[in-house]
Amino acid sequence: MAIQTVLTEKLGISAPVLLAPMAGVSGGKLAAAVTNAGGLGFIGGGYCDPDWIAKEMKEAGNTRVGVGFITWALERNPDVLNRVIDQQPKAIFLSFGELGSFAAPVKRANLPLIAQVQSVEQARRAAGEGADVIIAQGTEAGGHGSMRATMPLVPAVVDAVGDIPVVAAGGIADGRGLAAALMLGAAGVLCGTAFVVADESLAHPNIKKDAVAGNGDATTRGSLFDIARGIDWPEQWTIRTLTNDFTRQWVNDLDGLGRNLTQEQARYAKARDAGDTSISAIIVGEGIDLVRVQQPADAIMNAMIAQAEELLRRGPAFSTSGR
Amino acid sequence: MAIQTVLTEKLGISAPVLLAPMAGVSGGKLAAAVTNAGGLGFIGGGYCDPDWIAKEMKEAGNTRVGVGFITWALERNPDVLNRVIDQQPKAIFLSFGELGSFAAPVKRANLPLIAQVQSVEQARRAAGEGADVIIAQGTEAGGHGSMRATMPLVPAVVDAVGDIPVVAAGGIADGRGLAAALMLGAAGVLCGTAFVVADESLAHPNIKKDAVAGNGDATTRGSLFDIARGIDWPEQWTIRTLTNDFTRQWVNDLDGLGRNLTQEQARYAKARDAGDTSISAIIVGEGIDLVRVQQPADAIMNAMIAQAEELLRRGPAFSTSGR
Ligand SMILES: Cc1cc2nc3c(=O)[nH]c(=O)nc-3n(C[C@H](O)[C@H](O)[C@H](O)COP(=O)(O)O)c2cc1C
Ligand SMILES: Cc1cc2nc3c(=O)[nH]c(=O)nc-3n(C[C@H](O)[C@H](O)[C@H](O)COP(=O)(O)O)c2cc1C
Repeated sequence: MAIQTVLTEKLGISAPVLLAPMAGVSGGKLAAAVTNAGGLGFIGGGYCDPDWIAKEMKEAGNTRVGVGFITWALERNPDVLNRVIDQQPKAIFLSFGELGSFAAPVKRANLPLIAQVQSVEQARRAAGEGADVIIAQGTEAGGHGSMRATMPLVPAVVDAVGDIPVVAAGGIADGRGLAAALMLGAAGVLCGTAFVVADESLAHPNIKKDAVAGNGDATTRGSLFDIARGIDWPEQWTIRTLTNDFTRQWVNDLDGLGRNLTQEQARYAKARDAGDTSISAIIVGEGIDLVRVQQPADAIMNAMIAQAEELLRRGPAFSTSGR
Repeated sequence: MAIQTVLTEKLGISAPVLLAPMAGVSGGKLAAAVTNAGGLGFIGGGYCDPDWIAKEMKEAGNTRVGVGFITWALERNPDVLNRVIDQQPKAIFLSFGELGSFAAPVKRANLPLIAQVQSVEQARRAAGEGADVIIAQGTEAGGHGSMRATMPLVPAVVDAVGDIPVVAAGGIADGRGLAAALMLGAAGVLCGTAFVVADESLAHPNIKKDAVAGNGDATTRGSLFDIARGIDWPEQWTIRTLTNDFTRQWVNDLDGLGRNLTQEQARYAKARDAGDTSISAIIVGEGIDLVRVQQPADAIMNAMIAQAEELLRRGPAFSTSGR
């Protein structure tokens, strides 16, 4: 199976599917599995712990994978970028902040610079700062993101950035979403939620269980879980999670949470370590409706690509002009 | 030009594109233009003024068009439904409320019952209540709506409602969106924003001017303009508009607006009548980036269908499996 786009050509891969660099979820094994299935896997370098990243790059073995960072966290630990570049990742992925001074070292190392953005304005800026691939991320995405939605954001970004390949992210978890993204003008897709439940994902087994049973109507985007985890995310990005007891308790009472912060942060940390998903964040997006089984990453990839190929082949049958 | 789906067969039309029944915008002329271009136009019966609806049905002339209602408003004026059914619309469209007792008279008159929903749960309910077509509306839509986004909502609704044709709404304003919606499993699209700027639209000329210059990054969804207009919309539905001076003044200070309500409602009404779009709501969705010219509705339709057909015909070229 193969689907060819400017993205697959640029990255030398056979399917235009990228694994999102999910902090705490996308380790070396998951990233390698996605690369080996024809896409490109990214290790979730997230908050920039260099030892964890090095360990996970080893886990990927001989398979080339990329590494993603949360840009504002990298600004606080800028040395981590060069340490990772030295380990020869396949590409560098930056999200949630300006590319700024990070573009130069990536370019010098001759690595593709992949920038995830949440608006047309950010896309234009990333294009100007040297991004080789731009990921247009919609609000329906799992994890951190912003307010614009994938369906109208992707074609608007395509129109705004000229020849730079655009990848669609947010709400894409099967072959229908992949085929739709290509119609929108995207050169590929980035998926997180679909792979949270993969056998190789580092998510807690209870999270995988809740995710495959999860309901897309029941996710919310907000700051609650960043407050609970004590991570000072810039205000413009919020986190989408599946609603659980902790959401229900606090989502409409962040002031109350603030008054009980020490106690609730301790309760949260304990729950997370214990895999208690009534409290701990189940970080998935609205696409969770489309994710109904836990299986190996290559099975997820194969199903997605086969379904997209079939839909794309059926495309001409919709048109009756020639008949 | 023609695109065939279960929707076009069911409704006897040649292109799976429906005009949204936009209150104050979709009059008889616009609805007729969309029907005459191969789709199906709906008059925006909105808040249920029977005389206005009758007048606009006359404007449609001999062209069959549908009529749409805001369901919770129809509950307050239930007689309007039978008056409209007597005028032989092509279909009845209900949105923002339960179908409830309105399904029976529509069925009795043998008219297609089209229900717009904002979640999978609502889609299941509409299916159970007898909807013939279900419109899955994403949060990126212009006008009233809710929180789920089009890209993941549409396939989830398709999976939930069995054989009932699903139409995608929200963020679709060109052939890319139409082709993408078909890949998601939708049988067609419903467009509002794309037609606000049509020559035949009843929107004020200043609104059309601001819309074609509008920026998709700059829309917001909230209750502000319903408060300003004094319409008591149920809390679960908010309205998406293009940010203007009035948004900037009040969006983060609804309490302040409440304290100045009489005065601000008067200022708002005056601005609306004068076409002052620095204050009056510019009701469009995130897809506004894709709408760059004011033109007749049939030109909008033709461009959308031609672009979608071309993309659908190109579909197989993405797949390299057979090569
Ligand atoms: C569990 C989880 C963790 C995530 N962590 C990160 C992260 O650390 N850095 C990042 O750039 N994006 C992160 N994301 C967002 C992804 O990059 C991507 O935009 C998103 O998963 C795409 O939408 P989808 O979840 O609907 O597939 C995360 C997403 C999930 C679901
Ligand atoms: C100006 C405007 C007015 C609208 N009024 C109504 C309405 O009265 N009743 C209704 O069901 N939907 C209304 N909608 C929503 C549409 O039914 C539809 O869901 C939406 O326009 C689709 O998204 P789009 O704007 O991105 O095309 C309105 C939309 C706009 C842009």
